[in-house]
Amino acid sequence: MSVTYDVAVIGAGPAGYVAAIRCAQLGLSTVCIDDWKNGAGKPSLGGTCLNAGCIPSKVLLESSENYERIQHNFPAHGITVQGLNLDIPTMLARKEKIVHSLTGGISVLFRKNKVASIHGRASLAGGGVLWRLEVAKPDGDMQQVEAKYVIVATGSTPRQLPQVPVDNDRVVDNVGALNFKEVPKRIGVIGAGVIGLELGSVWRRLGSNVTLFQAHETFLPSVDEQIAAEALRIFTRQGLTFKRGIKFTSIKVTKKSVAIEFEDKDGVQKQQFDKLIVAIGRAPNTAGLNAGQVGLNLDGNGYIEVDEQCRTNLPNMYAIGDVVRGPMLAHKGSEEGVAVAELIAGQAGHVNYDTIPWVIYTSPEIAWVGQTEQALKLAGVDFRKGTFPFSANGRAHALQATAGLVKFLADAKTDRILGVHVIGPCASELIQEAVVAMEFAASSEDIARIVHAHPSLSESFHEAALGVAKRSIHI
Amino acid sequence: MSVTYDVAVIGAGPAGYVAAIRCAQLGLSTVCIDDWKNGAGKPSLGGTCLNAGCIPSKVLLESSENYERIQHNFPAHGITVQGLNLDIPTMLARKEKIVHSLTGGISVLFRKNKVASIHGRASLAGGGVLWRLEVAKPDGDMQQVEAKYVIVATGSTPRQLPQVPVDNDRVVDNVGALNFKEVPKRIGVIGAGVIGLELGSVWRRLGSNVTLFQAHETFLPSVDEQIAAEALRIFTRQGLTFKRGIKFTSIKVTKKSVAIEFEDKDGVQKQQFDKLIVAIGRAPNTAGLNAGQVGLNLDGNGYIEVDEQCRTNLPNMYAIGDVVRGPMLAHKGSEEGVAVAELIAGQAGHVNYDTIPWVIYTSPEIAWVGQTEQALKLAGVDFRKGTFPFSANGRAHALQATAGLVKFLADAKTDRILGVHVIGPCASELIQEAVVAMEFAASSEDIARIVHAHPSLSESFHEAALGVAKRSIHI
Repeated sequence: MSVTYDVAVIGAGPAGYVAAIRCAQLGLSTVCIDDWKNGAGKPSLGGTCLNAGCIPSKVLLESSENYERIQHNFPAHGITVQGLNLDIPTMLARKEKIVHSLTGGISVLFRKNKVASIHGRASLAGGGVLWRLEVAKPDGDMQQVEAKYVIVATGSTPRQLPQVPVDNDRVVDNVGALNFKEVPKRIGVIGAGVIGLELGSVWRRLGSNVTLFQAHETFLPSVDEQIAAEALRIFTRQGLTFKRGIKFTSIKVTKKSVAIEFEDKDGVQKQQFDKLIVAIGRAPNTAGLNAGQVGLNLDGNGYIEVDEQCRTNLPNMYAIGDVVRGPMLAHKGSEEGVAVAELIAGQAGHVNYDTIPWVIYTSPEIAWVGQTEQALKLAGVDFRKGTFPFSANGRAHALQATAGLVKFLADAKTDRILGVHVIGPCASELIQEAVVAMEFAASSEDIARIVHAHPSLSESFHEAALGVAKRSIHI
Repeated sequence: MSVTYDVAVIGAGPAGYVAAIRCAQLGLSTVCIDDWKNGAGKPSLGGTCLNAGCIPSKVLLESSENYERIQHNFPAHGITVQGLNLDIPTMLARKEKIVHSLTGGISVLFRKNKVASIHGRASLAGGGVLWRLEVAKPDGDMQQVEAKYVIVATGSTPRQLPQVPVDNDRVVDNVGALNFKEVPKRIGVIGAGVIGLELGSVWRRLGSNVTLFQAHETFLPSVDEQIAAEALRIFTRQGLTFKRGIKFTSIKVTKKSVAIEFEDKDGVQKQQFDKLIVAIGRAPNTAGLNAGQVGLNLDGNGYIEVDEQCRTNLPNMYAIGDVVRGPMLAHKGSEEGVAVAELIAGQAGHVNYDTIPWVIYTSPEIAWVGQTEQALKLAGVDFRKGTFPFSANGRAHALQATAGLVKFLADAKTDRILGVHVIGPCASELIQEAVVAMEFAASSEDIARIVHAHPSLSESFHEAALGVAKRSIHI
């Protein structure tokens, strides 16, 4: 027996569940099929983002930052403690509780919006007027689903090292690194990108000795060079160790440790770790989808090929989120989900890929939108820049968070804002001002002439924008 | 002997010092005259804002919030302490250090921009082609200054109770309330506005029993009613006691306490306090300016009368900041300072009073821009609204700060944003997105269609904007 829907969404991560809700809001009968199981073996909506990514990492980043601040920041306020105790199980339980609450929230939203929810792994079983899907249920049963439209939102999975498989005990990916039962003494992190930096920061703050390895010489290559240099300086001062431009010659897992042998400009070196976090990026997840059988085109890197509006090569089939081109960011996937739902409903649907903000949730946070200085130089664009350090911002002093800066890049002729980059307190929130400004094709002078609340960190935006015309007040 | 300048600025608060720097940037020879003395009797630029207002209060708000969070928030993270110690002298020293650093920074900016700085109290001594000023120096000397233009930025001073004068020992204003040498057991605060709430919050968090009195029945009358009701609920739960609609029948200061007798709907009541904070608003400061003698018009409330571009009734004389109409906000004064400097230099100068953000730095913070729901109703404007609670925001859960909401008000026909109101974490920073949007005459749909970083508090803006069209995803 099969049920027929207007839309079947495969995957309930931030791309898929948002697409499903928006479809239902627009009057389309919608089913969302997802096979994520949580640690207790129960279905859990929300995909990587809610279950093992954005949300739990931010929860542990907050916990670990609190722990570090008691020790390093509070004494300057006259606040001191005698005995400081850290209970990892309580910390992890708080994370689980928040994840449980938010993933449960999606179930509630599905019911409220009348989105049907099926737990199982969907594969494409062909189509004609209707697409047919087969859903493998955990109990072994197969369920048939038919839908006029399919939205594939199967997300991504962590890439693995060829040498050593992730066992989520000694060699872990993002899932394992969120669940260490005690603070490891020595952690190696392979990959010094967003995930490596965030998870490495969590455990360093809690007491681990953390070394991050990367094959490239360039730290955070997609980040503006000036910001990346500032970040490297700050993170190194915090106690993270970086080994760049390295090549592994051997990685061996024993019962007690992970022994790594690598080569860099200083020659061959050996290091032992209690835990190894593998954070070398993520790959689009099309396993079991049966893409080849139905003729769904993938590109050379395994992504589902789509046009600007997320249409695949097959009729009435869309793909969104991590499984297609573009940044692997939850909010990019969600926006694509909304756009595709509106397209299916016969409305206009559009994602402006030029104004998608990026955030790295280290401390200080890093956030940016638009182009980097090195990209503008490479493209031969004539630009002007303005920067402003948080060390000249009153609110940052009050918050004891004066490291970092804001940087505006604007077209030299038109003054249109081309990129805004922040490393500093609250960067994840501050960047939104720049996103809105860029959506309105604002000039740096626009921001310079807009009043900013005092005292606030966003005054640094104001001053950096003023700086483009060399008329900052406070520097 | 007198020196002649293009511009003389009277007052070095955020209106005056910014005006002076901007004048100098534009090539005008500029002097700034200010008579603030710090606790050590030394000249200290920056006015009330830097010396006894915005900055020191935010420093103590941060310190006290840290102290409270250790006790109330950290245990949920598995972070516990055996002994918690609070050293008020260290806390106050940190505040003094930050104030000293920032006020000193203005001296540096003056030197860098070649703004002449005179310490003393200026009075207007008449004019013709040039304005003449007399500056009374602390040593009793008088200094003559001549200038083509005068910018009056003399700020405001705390209003006092007729019954009991502020002695800054037992009965204090904002200056005294920032300098209690130990945590008072019982604090009475007269006035439950911005200053009363911020200073009351500081000492409540540090352990004081705080009662706030106000004559009006309406709590925070200029705040959107829904936000004010939420704020009252949250602050009461935090332990602040509010007595509204009261009338004092007697206030008596003894050596050991302040005895208050007041009447409200429950009849006559008596209460004793160790400290009484008087926070009943601020009055424009024109004392000693000699306004009457030179014919400078004041309005019935003592403000210097100015037009939309801050021109007084006298030729070549401007007035800006707290001493003129409009909100007593540092950033409003600074923007007026820039505008007036540019007008004097022959450029266009303009302040958009409709997009000035307001912030109350309680926890959670309150911030808004544009019109309140009650104002729109009163004006008969047809509007739609969208709200979103932080309890449905993932980042807020991570930050353990789920109280509060975002509220969008948009024109029912055009969808243009008319007001945005926030009570919640980071409201002081989040509001800037709304300020920029309103400057660009954005519709709520514009914000609804702009991507917001995940996970971030600003997603609640996105959702509240979506809510105007009843199409929020996450609620």
